[in-house]
This record gives sequence, C-alpha cells and structure tokens, in this order.
Amino acid sequence: MVSFSVTILGSSSAVPTSVRFPSAHLVNTGERIFLIDAGEGTQIQLRRLRVRFGKLNHIFISHVHGDHVFGLFGLLATLSLLKRDTDLHIYSHSSLKQILDQHLSNFHIDGLPFRIVYHFLNENTPEIVYEDKLITVTSFPLSHRISTCGFLFREKPLPLNIKKEMIEYFQIPFPAIQRIKNGEGYILEDGTLIENNRLTHAAYRQRSYAYCSDTAYTEDILPIIKNIDLLYHEATYSAELSSRARETGHSTSIQAATIAQKAKVKKLIIGHFSARYKDLSPLLEEARTVFPATYLACEGDVFSIKAEREISIEK
Amino acid sequence: MVSFSVTILGSSSAVPTSVRFPSAHLVNTGERIFLIDAGEGTQIQLRRLRVRFGKLNHIFISHVHGDHVFGLFGLLATLSLLKRDTDLHIYSHSSLKQILDQHLSNFHIDGLPFRIVYHFLNENTPEIVYEDKLITVTSFPLSHRISTCGFLFREKPLPLNIKKEMIEYFQIPFPAIQRIKNGEGYILEDGTLIENNRLTHAAYRQRSYAYCSDTAYTEDILPIIKNIDLLYHEATYSAELSSRARETGHSTSIQAATIAQKAKVKKLIIGHFSARYKDLSPLLEEARTVFPATYLACEGDVFSIKAEREISIEK
Repeated sequence: MVSFSVTILGSSSAVPTSVRFPSAHLVNTGERIFLIDAGEGTQIQLRRLRVRFGKLNHIFISHVHGDHVFGLFGLLATLSLLKRDTDLHIYSHSSLKQILDQHLSNFHIDGLPFRIVYHFLNENTPEIVYEDKLITVTSFPLSHRISTCGFLFREKPLPLNIKKEMIEYFQIPFPAIQRIKNGEGYILEDGTLIENNRLTHAAYRQRSYAYCSDTAYTEDILPIIKNIDLLYHEATYSAELSSRARETGHSTSIQAATIAQKAKVKKLIIGHFSARYKDLSPLLEEARTVFPATYLACEGDVFSIKAEREISIEK
Repeated sequence: MVSFSVTILGSSSAVPTSVRFPSAHLVNTGERIFLIDAGEGTQIQLRRLRVRFGKLNHIFISHVHGDHVFGLFGLLATLSLLKRDTDLHIYSHSSLKQILDQHLSNFHIDGLPFRIVYHFLNENTPEIVYEDKLITVTSFPLSHRISTCGFLFREKPLPLNIKKEMIEYFQIPFPAIQRIKNGEGYILEDGTLIENNRLTHAAYRQRSYAYCSDTAYTEDILPIIKNIDLLYHEATYSAELSSRARETGHSTSIQAATIAQKAKVKKLIIGHFSARYKDLSPLLEEARTVFPATYLACEGDVFSIKAEREISIEK
C-alpha cells in the first residue's frame, strides 16, 4: 500500500529558536512529495532528510508572511543551480508572484532554467487546487491578519481489493477484474451472478490530513476538516495568552484542541510555537485536557497514516 | 585582555548541504560582535551559539549574491519582532538598500522599529569603513562576477603595559601613568628621568583577520592582507576544477593556500565549499601542501587569536 505521511520541517512561529525552524511541512503520498510553506532553512531541512529535490514539484504557501516564505528564496536558487528543467507549481496568494518576480530579477536570476506555474488561491471559499490519480488538495480560508489558506490532502476513493483466490477459482479475466474492483459482480458462463461482496475485501479508507496555520480560532473550518485522520493546527500560545492570540490572529493550544475535538479528527499535531516556550510540555498537556490524541510538532518527526483505521506515530 | 575571535556560521557555497550552511562569519572583538555575510539560516546559527541579538549592530555584506544575503530577510524580521530600537549598520554594495527597501515593503514591514544605516562600499579601492576604540575595519575589492569586497579587521595600536610594581615603587600618580602608557618616561621629584622601558612591558601586538569571499585568485589583495594573523579565503573547488573556478569567479584550495603563503599570514581558514564535496579532507590536504597552517571552516568552530604571538584554534 502506498504511504501517506507528514514530516515536520519547522515548528516555530516567526522567531526561530536554536532548535526550531520556521514553518514547513512535507507531505508524502505514494511516490509524490508536496511542500507546505517554506520558512527560512527549508532547503537545509530537506537536505537533512535526504529528500531528492528533483521530486519536489508542488509547493503550497498558506500566506505571504516571511516565516512561511523566506525559505523559497534559497530553494529557488538551489533548484536553479541544480539545473532543474521541469515546471514547479506554486499555490499561493496572488501577491507572491510579483514578489518572486522582483526577487529573481534583483538577484540576477532572470532566466530560471524551469518555469514556475502559479495557482492563485481563492481566499473566500474552499476549492480543489490539485488533483492526481491518488489525491486531491483543497485550499480553504483561515482567519489571520492577512489572506491565509489551509490545505486539505485527501485520498480519492480507492478501488475494492479483489480476493486473489477468487480470481483463480473462477478464472476471472483481466477486464472483469477491473469492473469487480469498481463494485460490479461477476457473471459465470452458466449465467450465475457471483455478488461483489463474495469477490472482494473492503476498500482501504481514504486517508486525510489538513494543515491550518496561521489562524485564529474559527469554527468555519469545521465542515472541511470533519472526521479527518490528522489535523495540524497552529498553537502559537498557551491558554493564558489567549488575548495576545486574538490580537495577533493566532490560536492557543486549548483552541487548537477544541477544533480537533469538535471536528472529530483522529489525531492532532500542534505547532507554530512562540519562541518564548523553551519547554513545550505545558502546551501539550493543556491541549490534551481537551483532546487527548494531541502531539507536538518537532523537527524531523514523521506522522504516518496507515492504510487502516489507525494512525501510527514514528519518532 | 579582550578577545578577538572568528566563529564560522556557514561554510558552504551557494547550495547548502545537510551539515553546511551558506556563508556567514561572526567576529568578536572585546564586547562587540560583527556579522560578515548572512546566508540563509544565519539567525538560526546565531541562536545556536546563544548570541544576544541586541549586541549585533554592524553587518558587513561582501556582495549581493543570495547565498551571502538571504539570511538578512529573516534576521531583520526577527530584530523587528524583538522590538530592536537602536540603529543597525549595514556595509554593502549600494544595490542592497533598494532590495531591502522593496523587501520590507513587500512583507508589510514598512515601519521597522529601528533605523538601518547604510554604508556603501567602495568597489575600486580599500577604505576604512568602521572604526571604534579598539579596531578598524577596511573593505577592499575582490575579484568576482559582481562587485565584491573583502574585509580586514585590525586592532588599533595598543598602549604599553605599565609594570604595577613600578607604580607602587615610584608612587606614580594617575595622569603620569597615562603618559607612560603612551611611551613617555617619568621624572622623579629630584629630576631623575626613569626611562620608559624600565616602567613598561612591550605592548600587545595588533591582531588582525581578513575575510576574502567570494573571489577568484587575485594577487591584488596581497598588500592588504600582508602578515595578518588569520586569513579566511574561499576555496570553492579542489585544484582539478581550476577551470571551473576561473569561469565562476571562485578559487581552488591551492589558490587560497598560495595567497596565504605569498601574504605571509599566520593561519589560513578555507571555506565556501562546493556541495559536491562530502569529505573535505582532500581540499585541506591539497592546501596544506602549499600552506601547512591551513584549517577547514566548519559550522560552530571558533578561531581565537590570542593576545600574544600565537593563534589558538578551539574546536
């Protein structure tokens, strides 16, 4: 079964610490990788994880604040030096294009050896922004000081798994196998119908992951993230700084946990931690009072969603 | 005696590796710190070294290529978030001002809480660009694809060290002590002249460090760096890639060592290594065939110049 995992590249808010990089996540579905946000040092984190830069074709930028974007500058320069020649897709607010155009011109990188294909996000309503054989990615509005979008990665409905022993037993030919995987039964030469549920196992369920950063507490996102496997929700502050969270368009760990609980997600990752917290365990404990299945984002951690009911956490 | 040391924050050339950050050095003289170049991740490296950001008042940028500049973006954002309110001095090519102005405006940082004072470098001739009680910093032209300057940090002549036992023996009053430190003798009440060399130890010699990156091999810099204690000279490539070095305006390790040897410096640090070298020992060995006192730049290394004749290397 193909993999579906999220790797934390950066867990800090705007001011990084000696151990926490600014925001960046890597999503891995099957053989494809997707970068969400690109804080300063993203390319260094990708190197540490031995990610092949040539495999990176899609970058999703939640919003145009420096701690989510500054890593793009170095990454684009490196991709250029590595002589990348295939399109790079960037999903972002429209203002990013002008900034990157200006930037590339300032640094004498007028002629990238590859094309950047921009996909501007709809800041008002959820929209599918990416689709391939395996997954869709939907952007949806968050509530921050500037236009900001979250991203929902969801597997497409998967075909039913046909029982191998039944193929042999009934000598089922290849074209019929495809139809059975899509839910049909199989008619024998004598006209007998073998019903689909005798021929197949249940399909794997559709796995899902959503990234919500930066955002103030907003229940508007609940319908989008309802019942997903894994939710990343920012938790810049502890509950005692809830007024500061409100002023700056951020969330507390209690608020992140409340969203997870109301959306009935399976697991929650919190991150985007303020540099004031050296020890993050109070934020984790606070969140777990509301939503026990909460985990801290930590550089290098991989959260794998298995092709069953449960999510395993590899540390 | 005050310290005089150089800390390596980044040793890679344009493409960083899993262990090497792009160019940045920190010079520490007495209580003051000076940043030379600011590749991506500089602020993270400064955090790791527990450098107090408030102490950083002077940043020297050799040239406006991304791998020497991209770390400024995050650093300025962090200084702003930390509510810095004192002037920040940037010594650079004039083009950097426009780039940073545009950048700050793009990222809605129109009103930094501090002032950036720009000092534009003379690309044609050496020039003292900074001076305080203890040191001078001189910029000087290097030979690269775009206008690039090196920087020479040199202590000012230090006063003579008066022998404490002589102060007590002759009951020398404070104003006379200052004159003795500047080389005068001391006249007793009976008119006897006590010569200066009886009253003082030799002064500490003036310590010096020069940063030369990025640059092709050029003997034009020899008069500037003659006899200095510590030279950092880029060595992007090994000798076998000398034609690539020439094409790209860089140096080989042999060329860096040749400059060190011709300038009769005491110790040489090589750095700005191409990402193609996982193991740097061949570059070091090559350089040492020409100049034995060569050391590799390595993230976190501190090169301290003692207040005597010798330079100690702390790893």
